[in-house]
Amino acid sequence: MSAEKKLTQLSEVGEFGLIKLLSNKITIENKSTLKGIGDDAAVLDFSGKQVVVSTDLLVENVHFDLAYVPLKHLGYKSIVVNLSDIYAMNAKPTQVTISIAMSSRFPVEAVEELYEGMRLACKRYGVDIVGGDTSSSIKGLIISVTALGEVEKGKAVYRNGAKLNDILCVTGDVGAAYMGLQLLEREKQVFKTDPNMQPELENYEYLIERQLKPEPRNDAITFFAENGILPTSMIDISDGLSSEILHICEESNVGCRVYEDKIPLDPDTDRFARELNIDPSIAALNGGEDYELLFTISPFDYEKIRNNPVFSAIGHITDIERGTFLVARDESEIPLEAQGWRHN
Amino acid sequence: MSAEKKLTQLSEVGEFGLIKLLSNKITIENKSTLKGIGDDAAVLDFSGKQVVVSTDLLVENVHFDLAYVPLKHLGYKSIVVNLSDIYAMNAKPTQVTISIAMSSRFPVEAVEELYEGMRLACKRYGVDIVGGDTSSSIKGLIISVTALGEVEKGKAVYRNGAKLNDILCVTGDVGAAYMGLQLLEREKQVFKTDPNMQPELENYEYLIERQLKPEPRNDAITFFAENGILPTSMIDISDGLSSEILHICEESNVGCRVYEDKIPLDPDTDRFARELNIDPSIAALNGGEDYELLFTISPFDYEKIRNNPVFSAIGHITDIERGTFLVARDESEIPLEAQGWRHN
Repeated sequence: MSAEKKLTQLSEVGEFGLIKLLSNKITIENKSTLKGIGDDAAVLDFSGKQVVVSTDLLVENVHFDLAYVPLKHLGYKSIVVNLSDIYAMNAKPTQVTISIAMSSRFPVEAVEELYEGMRLACKRYGVDIVGGDTSSSIKGLIISVTALGEVEKGKAVYRNGAKLNDILCVTGDVGAAYMGLQLLEREKQVFKTDPNMQPELENYEYLIERQLKPEPRNDAITFFAENGILPTSMIDISDGLSSEILHICEESNVGCRVYEDKIPLDPDTDRFARELNIDPSIAALNGGEDYELLFTISPFDYEKIRNNPVFSAIGHITDIERGTFLVARDESEIPLEAQGWRHN
Repeated sequence: MSAEKKLTQLSEVGEFGLIKLLSNKITIENKSTLKGIGDDAAVLDFSGKQVVVSTDLLVENVHFDLAYVPLKHLGYKSIVVNLSDIYAMNAKPTQVTISIAMSSRFPVEAVEELYEGMRLACKRYGVDIVGGDTSSSIKGLIISVTALGEVEKGKAVYRNGAKLNDILCVTGDVGAAYMGLQLLEREKQVFKTDPNMQPELENYEYLIERQLKPEPRNDAITFFAENGILPTSMIDISDGLSSEILHICEESNVGCRVYEDKIPLDPDTDRFARELNIDPSIAALNGGEDYELLFTISPFDYEKIRNNPVFSAIGHITDIERGTFLVARDESEIPLEAQGWRHN
């Protein structure tokens, strides 16, 4: 009780007070930001570059569970998921607007913690917070972020440009965020049974971090720019590798062959999946929330990335008539499905 | 019950189905929109113009009450409040992104109605819907809209440019939206007491319309452009005339004199305020949600607008030392307050 006493109710500072409190800590880093928070709208100048814009909504108990997600991590992740969409266009994120609705159960300090995570992610990726809105909600916490980015004319990469014989590649590894979620859910159940139990999270820090504090792949976009590479199509992996591969194939009117043994898995993903009797490939294909980039690249450009450990070639693009298949380790061909992909 | 049977549960169509359903009806009208919905992000090209961006959050039972707000009107208004912010920068709105979280109590048809209102407002003001997100919520309906607009370099109008001797002007009339809200609240109470009572809304259609279906002042912005007028400062009236005047004075480091008898009131606002024993000037100064534009203009430019009935001069800018005052009808000077302004 004594610790709670120190917390500040939202009603004590009011909406204007809260906005002032949060915006005082915001600094502007991009020269494209002429005017940030403080007017009817922000004013930006992209100097002839094209602008990309993306938006995401995060709803408590739908997209996150505050029983195991620290607010600072949630703030960080809510920015990252949006920046990931901007990078997936081969663009550089430059600004975000942030709107938050929260019930009165959140003290001012909780909102500050959430914003601290947001500012941290923005600072790390060189993005300015240029606007937003705060409101009370009847129940729970809702976060809406809109991200803007810039890209040279002709350099935006869409989902629909994959061509026959292109190489299908993915950054980093996949499935870890999903296994991190399984781990956190398990510990939540244990905690419900016995609140004095210590969580058993050792040895799986990587999985937890991938779930709670993902990073977007700006390094891949920088590498493309520095090496004159333009992927033919690109998408970020939010719903699961399988679903995103199908998006690219459908939008590009092509088929593909993806090789199960080429899908990059972290050893922890593999180990913990087996511990839970989950097929690690299923975690990778259906898991989601990896925020890695899936892209296709011409065989000629592939030579420029093949020695970079960030990238893994996982398959190739075929005629649409050949369909979209996973080639399993036993060389059987299994149709890819958007959700609920299963081994036969 | 039989009428309800025909409604479609959100779970029947799923998130992807809903997005497809809603985005099928969207058309692109702006040449700055290169790619709308359907990729990780929209791609826009403003051809060297500056970009303005603004965002607003509308939360059920905080910002609107579905007991008397039809969903189509709510959709329309949720777009208008954002466009109003863009016009208040002297810019032309071009794109919006729309995110919606709603509980499962809303059938698909309700979401379609909401979107119909949104599309109608976008069509009327030539704005493209280029992105968004939909999600379930634990409780209620939450709408987050981000609007983008374009403005020639040097033509954006901020809150902070008011100068000594500038004329303070307002478009249209003020206070009607607030009186419309009082009327709807009164009828809601009557309905609670006796659901068979017919609402007494006749003769006050204008007040209801101002509350439920406001329009932004694009006509003022067009008039400025066509007549080579650049206001020195501008803001839209969302929180009430008094609060917005203080924003301009504070940001511009100036004072003002506002004349009570110059504040434009619709006769219905005046009549219904008196019926409820509310001072009509208080409705105008504190009411809010008018979505009119408040601006300052140099005395030279004022000559260009004085014969246009859209605009009313309500006061002038003074030195900061002279403070911010309302000159009442009896010529007494009353300090302006952001909230809760009262006659002595």
